[in-house]
Amino acid sequence: MTNDEKYMEEAYQEALIAYQNKEVPVGCVIVVNDKIIARAHNERHTKKCSIYHAEILAIEKACKALNRWILDDATIYVTLEPCNMCSGAIIQSRIKKLVYGVAQPKYGCVESTLNLFREGLFNHTVKVEKCSLNEKIENLMKNFFQELREKKKNSD
Amino acid sequence: MTNDEKYMEEAYQEALIAYQNKEVPVGCVIVVNDKIIARAHNERHTKKCSIYHAEILAIEKACKALNRWILDDATIYVTLEPCNMCSGAIIQSRIKKLVYGVAQPKYGCVESTLNLFREGLFNHTVKVEKCSLNEKIENLMKNFFQELREKKKNSD
Repeated sequence: MTNDEKYMEEAYQEALIAYQNKEVPVGCVIVVNDKIIARAHNERHTKKCSIYHAEILAIEKACKALNRWILDDATIYVTLEPCNMCSGAIIQSRIKKLVYGVAQPKYGCVESTLNLFREGLFNHTVKVEKCSLNEKIENLMKNFFQELREKKKNSD
Repeated sequence: MTNDEKYMEEAYQEALIAYQNKEVPVGCVIVVNDKIIARAHNERHTKKCSIYHAEILAIEKACKALNRWILDDATIYVTLEPCNMCSGAIIQSRIKKLVYGVAQPKYGCVESTLNLFREGLFNHTVKVEKCSLNEKIENLMKNFFQELREKKKNSD
């Protein structure tokens, strides 16, 4: 298992907590000097706040842990391709590297709707990689949305 | 004075607080049913957190005030063109209308670097307007950056 896979597994564990809470199952960890300094999962519905995506919550925790707002020595691992807001937050935090799991065709801002990380667009460039731990993440997402559809069907 | 100008004046008052705190002077208010439900100013340096832009803090407060994450009856007034993160947060919150003051050529994601609000890009479309209260906001921004340059020059 590579280091990236090890930390993506930790992000996956966070996604599982979101899944148990009936949230879109997205998890995230932030690593500095080979140590996890922040971990979070999607809490938008539970906490009734639109900005409480896993990445936003993890970045806030990371800033508090390091007592600074520039995270240029940090790598962020997130199970799902970041949305417009979270892509922006990663760039605004000057994070060094982003590793994400599976694509989000409707909202993703790395490879899907557009690429907010393309070089030269903003004054900070984040290194971006896709992790190979995708199958179990994909299954978790599929299960969540299948269950959601069935729940909706049964309540119609 | 139009309603939009009245609320932009309130956002400007928030920007003045940021200015007094030596932050990039950006202020924001969120209005529902002709009432301000949240107000905030940039606190990135003061609170040492990269996500603490005025819009993010105001959206968080608005969600808490309304006890819901969908803000589709809200108008957000912000003195500066929103960045990538804040534009995303406005779209993610499904805010009805954005009114902003002056452009931010380096980071702005409405008319400057790109337009995250263009119809059809995401599944939610925000109505976007530019407010006519620009001169005093522009002067505040100019003063801030001029003072910052002078401070840097004196410390070299």
